[in-house]
Amino acid sequence: MSGLRTDLYELRMAASYLRRGMTDRATFSLFARRLPPRRGFLVAAGLAEALTFLEEFAFDAADLRYLRDVGGFDQPTLAALSALRFTGDVWAVPEGRVVFADEPLLEVTAPIAEAQLVETGVLNIVTFQTTIASKAARCRLAAGDAQLVDFAFRRTHGIEAGAGVARASAIAGFAATSHVEAARRYGLAPSGTMAHSYVEAFPDERSAFRAFATDSPDNPIFLVDTYDTPAGVRAAVDVVAELGLTGPLGVRLDSGDLAALARQARTILDDAGLTHARIVASGSLDEAAVADLVAAGAPIDAYGVGTKMGVSYDAPSLDSAYKLVAVGDRPVLKLSPGKATLPGPKQVFRDAAGEADVVARRDEPAPGDREPLLVPVMRDGRRLEPADPPEEVRAARRRLDADLRWLPEPARRLTDPTPLTVTVSPALRALHDRVAAEARRGGA
Amino acid sequence: MSGLRTDLYELRMAASYLRRGMTDRATFSLFARRLPPRRGFLVAAGLAEALTFLEEFAFDAADLRYLRDVGGFDQPTLAALSALRFTGDVWAVPEGRVVFADEPLLEVTAPIAEAQLVETGVLNIVTFQTTIASKAARCRLAAGDAQLVDFAFRRTHGIEAGAGVARASAIAGFAATSHVEAARRYGLAPSGTMAHSYVEAFPDERSAFRAFATDSPDNPIFLVDTYDTPAGVRAAVDVVAELGLTGPLGVRLDSGDLAALARQARTILDDAGLTHARIVASGSLDEAAVADLVAAGAPIDAYGVGTKMGVSYDAPSLDSAYKLVAVGDRPVLKLSPGKATLPGPKQVFRDAAGEADVVARRDEPAPGDREPLLVPVMRDGRRLEPADPPEEVRAARRRLDADLRWLPEPARRLTDPTPLTVTVSPALRALHDRVAAEARRGGA
Repeated sequence: MSGLRTDLYELRMAASYLRRGMTDRATFSLFARRLPPRRGFLVAAGLAEALTFLEEFAFDAADLRYLRDVGGFDQPTLAALSALRFTGDVWAVPEGRVVFADEPLLEVTAPIAEAQLVETGVLNIVTFQTTIASKAARCRLAAGDAQLVDFAFRRTHGIEAGAGVARASAIAGFAATSHVEAARRYGLAPSGTMAHSYVEAFPDERSAFRAFATDSPDNPIFLVDTYDTPAGVRAAVDVVAELGLTGPLGVRLDSGDLAALARQARTILDDAGLTHARIVASGSLDEAAVADLVAAGAPIDAYGVGTKMGVSYDAPSLDSAYKLVAVGDRPVLKLSPGKATLPGPKQVFRDAAGEADVVARRDEPAPGDREPLLVPVMRDGRRLEPADPPEEVRAARRRLDADLRWLPEPARRLTDPTPLTVTVSPALRALHDRVAAEARRGGA
Repeated sequence: MSGLRTDLYELRMAASYLRRGMTDRATFSLFARRLPPRRGFLVAAGLAEALTFLEEFAFDAADLRYLRDVGGFDQPTLAALSALRFTGDVWAVPEGRVVFADEPLLEVTAPIAEAQLVETGVLNIVTFQTTIASKAARCRLAAGDAQLVDFAFRRTHGIEAGAGVARASAIAGFAATSHVEAARRYGLAPSGTMAHSYVEAFPDERSAFRAFATDSPDNPIFLVDTYDTPAGVRAAVDVVAELGLTGPLGVRLDSGDLAALARQARTILDDAGLTHARIVASGSLDEAAVADLVAAGAPIDAYGVGTKMGVSYDAPSLDSAYKLVAVGDRPVLKLSPGKATLPGPKQVFRDAAGEADVVARRDEPAPGDREPLLVPVMRDGRRLEPADPPEEVRAARRRLDADLRWLPEPARRLTDPTPLTVTVSPALRALHDRVAAEARRGGA
């Protein structure tokens, strides 16, 4: 992992800190300043990859040469960067937990140069995966008892983003992914049917279905809309009879009026005695389209959700921030209009009955029997639990299942949701007021 | 490059083709079915990385074990996949060219199993980079003579997407990027200033500016909005005088009313004799915000554009498709509602005077003195020009410069643009009608 995977300004600032012997431990807090439109909650995700990024952060010889030749960095700085590793501590909200604006997802405490250098990578990873997991969770809420399959890989933001989307959607409860490498990496169920091109590669639809069922006899799903959907379903029925298939199978609808076509398909399948045949729908689906199909009572057993989830089409990023909140023992904050921050390391306390969350100082006692959301996950640059990608996804999914049961209905709603109220503890508010007054004097 | 970086259905279809000895060469055409909202044109991008993907596509022993153990693939199929490499030909529109809906960006001709397996990767890479380059080109049109700097890395869709965004925005004319590793990889200018955290890490703003200018004397840019912007500009002026700085320098505004603050900053700087000091603006900018600032006559020399460009916030994907258009010598097409395709390998002919583009059969002569947009870029699995990432970016940028001069004003407009008309040649129309009639008979 090249240490150049950061913004140049992180390197310029780190170089200045190193040169000046500014080795104070600083705390940075990563949070969303506000929820995107149409979001009642966020799903924390990306932590495991962020910890790997921190563990692997280092500059190799080629990195240092580039910084010397192009960046103009001097030899003492290069020597310091050569030895630099991330040696800090991290507290974070575990993946899969529901969070809201202003709640720290992650806090880094490390010598200030280290904490600064990793900003770009950590913010990138957590913002991306939280964005996608939050969108995918809305799809999950929309789908009710139907299954969801991640079909996004072909239009995610690059090859590697496809794996992040598969992972984030698995956390959100998607049952499978089309992305084979991501399935392997994260222990997910790979899922795949056939494309229109396969049907077109044969002289006619029946020949294609016959070939596919012969070559993929384990749960064949026939894509029936290449020419005419009801005719396609009938062709599938004929091929099933002809080959005497008795195991799991299904049809996929990828265009047209999915609710009406699903009903027609269901009737044709049932009339042929194929009541066990499943109906899969796909094609530009998002949570609104899925919710409409569910509300219409469309007999659809599984939804393939792709691009709209995989780029979080209606809200493709978060207004996230990674803000300095303490240097040594000194809490700090920023007063810029619209970007003000709360000082010091923090904790978030949650009430089991759905009362407002409380953002507090990390060293405060929990008010009542509220649960603290942030837990220590890394100490001295080493993660506290060994990396286990499949188990990390399963654990995150269990947490989200529990949190979605807890989440009050106004925040769960797909349309016009109202997020849970987040309050600031009196102790944190007092700290803020004191530090803000000092900063106004200092900056003038 | 693991061959598992594909959708499972590509593998199921390829396995079926291989088992059946279906080795006919197929042609797939990659194009946008329609332009996203608010787009008058697209900028072709991603080709170089797509060719690398094709050259490296292969299954290693671990891939094959996974396909056997989890995918249930049989030994003859695994043996065939083990030997499989991409051996096909590619025609494509060179990167940086302006294109429109229905115009093939890329056409792959290869034995059908190979052409199918690479669909996901090629479609992913070209869709992503074209999406970002198109958004970034709008920023370039908005900025007029001001410079643009890519600040997107912290909120792109994962770490690797940050490099793709740096590259795509460089093609679109961005002058520099904050992303150091991408700058190295693609020969771009790295750019970086300081963050609010740096200011906060010092007892006061002046101390921070003094330290930064001392440690980064080469073109220091002072971030002046941590506490109060005009006071910050004055602090920068004082530090410049105190240190006797005479070289290039500037201030950065990252919040508030950027037009008003830029005017105030300009006045303060000019009154202090710092007429050469540059003003950089950043903070949630997109092409509309930049155009507004330019229209307001804000004295801003450079814009740092981040998240909104880096995720193409208002249109984070394209309705792109990779469609089978020929098997052997047989042109094919798809009739699905809203997803109909044109059959056969194609060419796009462009008129220098801005008349409608013509999508034609690849083997047609050019109508008049129109220029063909698609050129051969890969033969027998080998790219025709050796890979040269920095030169590829520079060449693409030159092409876009020329195409933006050519692009008719209605398509260039940022608001309510009208794309160039794209017509279908009579020969291609006749082919379509013939193949559609055959398909309707075949599919019934």
